[in-house]
Amino acid sequence: MTIDLRSDTVTKPTEAMLERMRTAELGDDSRDGDPTVMALEALAAERTGKEAGLFVASGTMGNLVALLAHADRGGEVLCDTGIHMLRSEMGGIASIAGLFFRTLPARRGAVDLDALADALHSRLTPSRLATGLVWMETSHNDAGGAVLPLEHMKAVRALADDHGAPVHVDGARLFNAACALGVEAKAIADHADSLMFCISKGLSAPIGSLLVGSRDFITRARAFRRMVGGAMRQAGIIAAAGIVALEEMTGRLAEDHRMAKRLARGLAAIDGSLTDPALAETNIVRIDVAASERDADQWTRALAARGVLAGAWTSRQIRCVTHRHTGPAEIEKAIAAFAETWRDFNTAPSR
Amino acid sequence: MTIDLRSDTVTKPTEAMLERMRTAELGDDSRDGDPTVMALEALAAERTGKEAGLFVASGTMGNLVALLAHADRGGEVLCDTGIHMLRSEMGGIASIAGLFFRTLPARRGAVDLDALADALHSRLTPSRLATGLVWMETSHNDAGGAVLPLEHMKAVRALADDHGAPVHVDGARLFNAACALGVEAKAIADHADSLMFCISKGLSAPIGSLLVGSRDFITRARAFRRMVGGAMRQAGIIAAAGIVALEEMTGRLAEDHRMAKRLARGLAAIDGSLTDPALAETNIVRIDVAASERDADQWTRALAARGVLAGAWTSRQIRCVTHRHTGPAEIEKAIAAFAETWRDFNTAPSR
Amino acid sequence: MTIDLRSDTVTKPTEAMLERMRTAELGDDSRDGDPTVMALEALAAERTGKEAGLFVASGTMGNLVALLAHADRGGEVLCDTGIHMLRSEMGGIASIAGLFFRTLPARRGAVDLDALADALHSRLTPSRLATGLVWMETSHNDAGGAVLPLEHMKAVRALADDHGAPVHVDGARLFNAACALGVEAKAIADHADSLMFCISKGLSAPIGSLLVGSRDFITRARAFRRMVGGAMRQAGIIAAAGIVALEEMTGRLAEDHRMAKRLARGLAAIDGSLTDPALAETNIVRIDVAASERDADQWTRALAARGVLAGAWTSRQIRCVTHRHTGPAEIEKAIAAFAETWRDFNTAPSR
Amino acid sequence: MTIDLRSDTVTKPTEAMLERMRTAELGDDSRDGDPTVMALEALAAERTGKEAGLFVASGTMGNLVALLAHADRGGEVLCDTGIHMLRSEMGGIASIAGLFFRTLPARRGAVDLDALADALHSRLTPSRLATGLVWMETSHNDAGGAVLPLEHMKAVRALADDHGAPVHVDGARLFNAACALGVEAKAIADHADSLMFCISKGLSAPIGSLLVGSRDFITRARAFRRMVGGAMRQAGIIAAAGIVALEEMTGRLAEDHRMAKRLARGLAAIDGSLTDPALAETNIVRIDVAASERDADQWTRALAARGVLAGAWTSRQIRCVTHRHTGPAEIEKAIAAFAETWRDFNTAPSR
Repeated sequence: MTIDLRSDTVTKPTEAMLERMRTAELGDDSRDGDPTVMALEALAAERTGKEAGLFVASGTMGNLVALLAHADRGGEVLCDTGIHMLRSEMGGIASIAGLFFRTLPARRGAVDLDALADALHSRLTPSRLATGLVWMETSHNDAGGAVLPLEHMKAVRALADDHGAPVHVDGARLFNAACALGVEAKAIADHADSLMFCISKGLSAPIGSLLVGSRDFITRARAFRRMVGGAMRQAGIIAAAGIVALEEMTGRLAEDHRMAKRLARGLAAIDGSLTDPALAETNIVRIDVAASERDADQWTRALAARGVLAGAWTSRQIRCVTHRHTGPAEIEKAIAAFAETWRDFNTAPSR
Repeated sequence: MTIDLRSDTVTKPTEAMLERMRTAELGDDSRDGDPTVMALEALAAERTGKEAGLFVASGTMGNLVALLAHADRGGEVLCDTGIHMLRSEMGGIASIAGLFFRTLPARRGAVDLDALADALHSRLTPSRLATGLVWMETSHNDAGGAVLPLEHMKAVRALADDHGAPVHVDGARLFNAACALGVEAKAIADHADSLMFCISKGLSAPIGSLLVGSRDFITRARAFRRMVGGAMRQAGIIAAAGIVALEEMTGRLAEDHRMAKRLARGLAAIDGSLTDPALAETNIVRIDVAASERDADQWTRALAARGVLAGAWTSRQIRCVTHRHTGPAEIEKAIAAFAETWRDFNTAPSR
Repeated sequence: MTIDLRSDTVTKPTEAMLERMRTAELGDDSRDGDPTVMALEALAAERTGKEAGLFVASGTMGNLVALLAHADRGGEVLCDTGIHMLRSEMGGIASIAGLFFRTLPARRGAVDLDALADALHSRLTPSRLATGLVWMETSHNDAGGAVLPLEHMKAVRALADDHGAPVHVDGARLFNAACALGVEAKAIADHADSLMFCISKGLSAPIGSLLVGSRDFITRARAFRRMVGGAMRQAGIIAAAGIVALEEMTGRLAEDHRMAKRLARGLAAIDGSLTDPALAETNIVRIDVAASERDADQWTRALAARGVLAGAWTSRQIRCVTHRHTGPAEIEKAIAAFAETWRDFNTAPSR
Repeated sequence: MTIDLRSDTVTKPTEAMLERMRTAELGDDSRDGDPTVMALEALAAERTGKEAGLFVASGTMGNLVALLAHADRGGEVLCDTGIHMLRSEMGGIASIAGLFFRTLPARRGAVDLDALADALHSRLTPSRLATGLVWMETSHNDAGGAVLPLEHMKAVRALADDHGAPVHVDGARLFNAACALGVEAKAIADHADSLMFCISKGLSAPIGSLLVGSRDFITRARAFRRMVGGAMRQAGIIAAAGIVALEEMTGRLAEDHRMAKRLARGLAAIDGSLTDPALAETNIVRIDVAASERDADQWTRALAARGVLAGAWTSRQIRCVTHRHTGPAEIEKAIAAFAETWRDFNTAPSR
């Protein structure tokens, strides 16, 4: 049986989700509303302390319509260089939205506050773009699942507020961040004007994400969702699973985090260079294979041959993500596969 | 019980669909593919005689990614003025795609061929844009469900081919058009480089549309689908309903067309000015209420009070759409509601 | 000697302009300002009663930066179908600005006010775009140089104001319109939030146009001018000619109008079908050659062979534009060339 | 008399330029061509060994239309992080062109070739954007006027060619680069598919830049130039100065480079921390004021009070640019002003 550590996006819906989908009350969400979608949107707003919510087909769509709804042509988006939107959404939504991203230096996803203060600019002038939006991501995928400290988010929001710039949070793994901080999701969302979170990933719903914010913002975002083709018909059938995700699945993320920590410790025991368990803050473990003199692609092929799927993040780094289908037994087997691969690579001459 | 003639988009999934969704084999369609989505895409391609298919969240999304995949900035889109994309998709996708639409005179959705020949232009020059795309819609919503004759489509394609311009067909109601023409969907798709059709609407699936075309085109469209946020995770759960839609539901559209004809005849019997039954070619009936000296909004309110929902199309026109939930009994009641409203309005002084 | 009636854009700079250019005080307009450019911008603002002005390289650029500065993605532009921006600027600036143009029925360039009232929409909603801008053009090129009545402009502005939509006027030939109405340019500009006029064309400067509006609007427009590459260095060297154009050349447009009227009467005397002199309101004469059974291209070739250049506007219409280089002698020769061509075409069998 | 070292863009036209402008043969460049513009475009093409040239209003416009003509939505632009287009053209043209810039690590403007090889991607796929364009800048403004070695340019072009990606060179100061390398401009342009160079800056023409490339590319660029509003009327009046710039002014850039070297040596003599004369390759000198415990703004204010204008590049760096109006006397005075400021700042306590 293959152990899939490539991403928590591979999770399948639970029985409870399938059952709720079977019996969901449906309407035409693109016309006068679907009651199940409306229930999910209300629940999302409530959990994040925002006025309104919008169900979207993916995290990318949530981020895209947030960009379109917030920022106009005369504005630039301030962010760190590693945000998922630039790295893994093909840069394309920058191109679709016609926005310019100014990247700032950052440490584990947290931008340098002095650099942010320098970059913020309140108004379009003949020589500078205004700041249209400040962007944060937490937990931060490219930073190995690092969680932004609440004080950092508060400081960013305060600086942005001083310049009248809205703050968007890509919280694709919002509940992982909240779990790691030991707070409610709302405590994170408090520092955002708008926020996107996914109900797929660790929460295991098959499809979708939620965008939350003020009522006015969501009305604009809803219009742009239609423009990008995200207004769906009887969408309640998938929103139903999202309700289960929020009601029943957020509590279990702590288990994914325990598994990530266990995996990290197991790998560090193989060789200290592979990973630092202290950095496995949530359900992501980043592994550096440089000491093995093999590159990440060689490693992922060797692991796959042993029944463990992991993703090459860079030429020398691997990313593993824990989730509902990777319990203690799977983690032990994964550690064993890493140990065997390490041994093989250290006894065989490298290519 | 309310009779909803506003659109065939209000149709609910069938039991067979719900069952197939419950048991569908799932994967991560945004990663390495979902087997049920792949099966639906293959089925769509086969039914339309194209190399490849792409599952999208809506007809708007299918049209948008087709635009993005076909046409670059130096090109314009030639179409008739009534296409759904310009009328009812908020013009927004023109804005998202950054494309310029040159509208041509048309009769029941069929553009004037001389005007098309004049407008076609093979190459961007300092004084003229190239033609990036020729757009047709069939059945044509704004033309009251009119179906483009195959010879017309053939002639348009031939002109477009002469100038190296691809042809896209918005076939949101492709199977209604095919049913009315008494041909396979493929006979229509033969005149298109790319085509979008919906599995919601008359086919009753809860969510989604298919874009079909050449393998290269679909690869590009798939990339743009990701950009606009349309790459979904375990999307097989909704694609499953689409497979049922294509396997079991296309045959039943003839019944919707019979109901539309019956409705049109019933209305014409009330007053000849209301509609011409000959124009009810598919499942749409357009009704002109000008002779009543009441506007369309007054009519739809009066009809709603009698339990019949219909949509104001213009200030003097109403649109009714038949579908799976409007059988003979519903159509008779609808005709009765129209007759009563007509009588009321003709005896009461107008506002 | 060729008589060039193709456009007033062919006018050469006057001796006074060349002299002023030779001695203009210059600065770096893209850095801290060019004194001659600033003087021209101030003069333009004063003549139109606006707070501020911006020197741009062309009318197209003025219209483009006005679009960018006024209207955001969530808005559409309301206009008549014949505006120069859509017809003759390649539709491209719609594509560059990513805006959707909703065209309204119009008579001689004046949109139907009921249709405008219907189309105006104050706020982006999930089902409708907001109105981002209302666009007028006067004198109206495609309407044969027709001038919008001030009462019409006032009514359009009032409707737009009711919906918080700004009004832009493409006044490429603003001073021709003012001359025809017998008012100051300011009387027209009063009905616009922003306005563009050309100093080339009848005013004879070699290069450039001015955009005027509120100080805030011009600051935004200045930023977008830089983005599109319109910030120039020692631009005072061409702005100098613009100052002469505004100071010395607006008065002479009446002469161009007299010449257009004389041309129109001469042509109507050849055959009444050719043109209606009453429609030659400014410096443009539109000629319908359909009665000759030759198309516009055949006519323009025949005229060119007789030393008269005119432009085919459609397959059956020709446009002639009078300007500083077409005095009474040239007009008489042009009429003679038309008369000879008419005679030739009416005696020779048509192709 | 103020000594302006802020930029070579402040140069005024020469007497020879003014005279040539006075007598230039003119036409309507936006209609059927202006003979003087055509002569300049032909000269530009010849000097760079390209098929065709296009006169544009600014370097920004040349870069923008090059982007529009080369790269479509499905492509990204590869460049180093310091290119002028991203730093100092407001990022706006990325937004206008709707393109995504992927920045690569670089040394003195030369991107890392391994990183470039990794980033190049031939075809849009569902998970990666294609490379639409590779961008180089020489001399490189942000790298202190550094000149890209020809072997580096050759290697970049070869890698790009392997992936079918065109190469654009921002050669705003192309002739400075050629002068520093001791080669003809053509030797640099050989490694570019398209190239933009300015006739303002050190060459002293008042307005304009040239874009050169293949005939097909220039035809497309000409169309996009019209879209962005860059098609001008009697543009020969400014092109005339450009002809003088290319015929008479390229030879004098060596003098600007000598002055920059003299300035750099003079500053290094004040304090070795201020600048490294070896890095003053062309007409730009970058000065680091960190050792003075004053920031760049304090320095530029103090220098201005002594009659020397210089620009703050970052909070600790100043940029000085030599040009036609800064001969030996001005350079000596500038060095003296720096020396006095250094002494003042080192004796007075810092704020």
